[in-house]
Amino acid sequence: MTILGLGAMGSAITERLRETGLTTTVWNRTTAKTEPHVKAGSTAATTITEAADASDIVIAVLLDHASVHQNLEPAAERLRGKTLVNLTTTTPNEARTTAAWATEHGIDYLDGAIMATPDMIGKPESLFLYSGSENAFTLAGPALEPLGTTRFEGTDPGVAALKDMALLSSMYLMLSGYLQAAAMMRTVGVSATDTAEAVGDWLGAIMGHLPGFGAIIDSGAYHPAQGQDVNFTRPAVASLIAASREQGIKADFLETGKKLLDELAATGRGDSDWVSIVESLTIR
Amino acid sequence: MTILGLGAMGSAITERLRETGLTTTVWNRTTAKTEPHVKAGSTAATTITEAADASDIVIAVLLDHASVHQNLEPAAERLRGKTLVNLTTTTPNEARTTAAWATEHGIDYLDGAIMATPDMIGKPESLFLYSGSENAFTLAGPALEPLGTTRFEGTDPGVAALKDMALLSSMYLMLSGYLQAAAMMRTVGVSATDTAEAVGDWLGAIMGHLPGFGAIIDSGAYHPAQGQDVNFTRPAVASLIAASREQGIKADFLETGKKLLDELAATGRGDSDWVSIVESLTIR
Repeated sequence: MTILGLGAMGSAITERLRETGLTTTVWNRTTAKTEPHVKAGSTAATTITEAADASDIVIAVLLDHASVHQNLEPAAERLRGKTLVNLTTTTPNEARTTAAWATEHGIDYLDGAIMATPDMIGKPESLFLYSGSENAFTLAGPALEPLGTTRFEGTDPGVAALKDMALLSSMYLMLSGYLQAAAMMRTVGVSATDTAEAVGDWLGAIMGHLPGFGAIIDSGAYHPAQGQDVNFTRPAVASLIAASREQGIKADFLETGKKLLDELAATGRGDSDWVSIVESLTIR
Repeated sequence: MTILGLGAMGSAITERLRETGLTTTVWNRTTAKTEPHVKAGSTAATTITEAADASDIVIAVLLDHASVHQNLEPAAERLRGKTLVNLTTTTPNEARTTAAWATEHGIDYLDGAIMATPDMIGKPESLFLYSGSENAFTLAGPALEPLGTTRFEGTDPGVAALKDMALLSSMYLMLSGYLQAAAMMRTVGVSATDTAEAVGDWLGAIMGHLPGFGAIIDSGAYHPAQGQDVNFTRPAVASLIAASREQGIKADFLETGKKLLDELAATGRGDSDWVSIVESLTIR
């Protein structure tokens, strides 16, 4: 198997694949990074063409969509008939663009998204989402299974990236919530570590309510509110903004939510369920 | 014990206190709501003055700060020497204002914040934070313990409200993250219920990292980054925004975070830890 890109993630993946007994060829833009892998038993390729020739399955773990195309396009014809697994983080449309490019060159394309940090590679809690060619998944999937929990999400090559990015979005917003709480708590002398524990406990308790919100959204029956309505939630969020500002803490994150609630109230949906915000997020 | 205000929360509290064998007097702005409580063994007071006279400990569970003052000010002299526990949701400064007003009238004041929904009252997972007069907590605390887990947070009457609002802020932002993910996932046919499960699993795994972020914030050593830096996080969040918009979903929540990251990068802090956003939230 060939691995293109030896950043922290590419290195962790190469190491784990080597541990499973696979023959690995590595390539990196700067060659210094190949050295520890060669010492550990991998072969270094000096060009992408050489790297492509070495294996039937080529895994790309590059910086971004632009670097995938910059590096792979010159070797396109050498990849013909081979399987390309692109684990580089890209948007869904970028994944679709790469899939179309691959098809044009007779390359069997599988897009992948990694939901893990490099230190988690090889553990079941690291999640690998794949989408695109089912044939490519059948061929490459078994070899990739030791990297973590593996899921094929369908033949739309953009789906793995989309699901990855939806979950990463929820993560950054949850972390923003923690940072907001930490900033507020510091004003009364609570350490960020103590806030981390309190937020963890509290959000852990709240997490159980998510499927209930999901059921309301799936039903589309926002009115009358099955749960908390916009008219209740607006002043509640306004209080949080006021409390934050009183303590000298910006409330930018909360204001974004308040604006969406204001729009719902201004368009006669004050007594709708507040989770109907999900509809406001959808551009019609 | 007297309970002022029989909304969903005031009713649940009255019911639980009655169950513990306490003698309860209730008052509500509209008298119809007192009826089921009278049937169940409580006494109804027709005026706030009568309600204040009935007990040494008076609990207010009213709509907001304004309604606390509107209803209690006429009865201020009748509350002299008594203990007032204010469970109405207010900002920290509003709690401090009410505490000052209470002191002026010789009323022993305890401010409380309820981290629970009415159906959780009486269960250990409902959390009651109190702050203000330690003497009031000593007097009223034991009677209030059956309502849920009880914590005295110190003599600053604003602290209970502040902690409540910091945790509620983290909750609304986590839920915003779920709604963002649900909106994105729907574009590829994933139900909001399935997204709820995926987000729950994913955030549950991420939650364990919060104390690590807390330790970085508490150390104040953002530079060089101990974890992920601003230069890495900015394009990552930009990708999430791009992915969201590609799918026809607004990315307002994520843009707020992106702006804060842009500010850090623009002021030469690109290689600082991204959690230093917490400092940007603090108005100097």
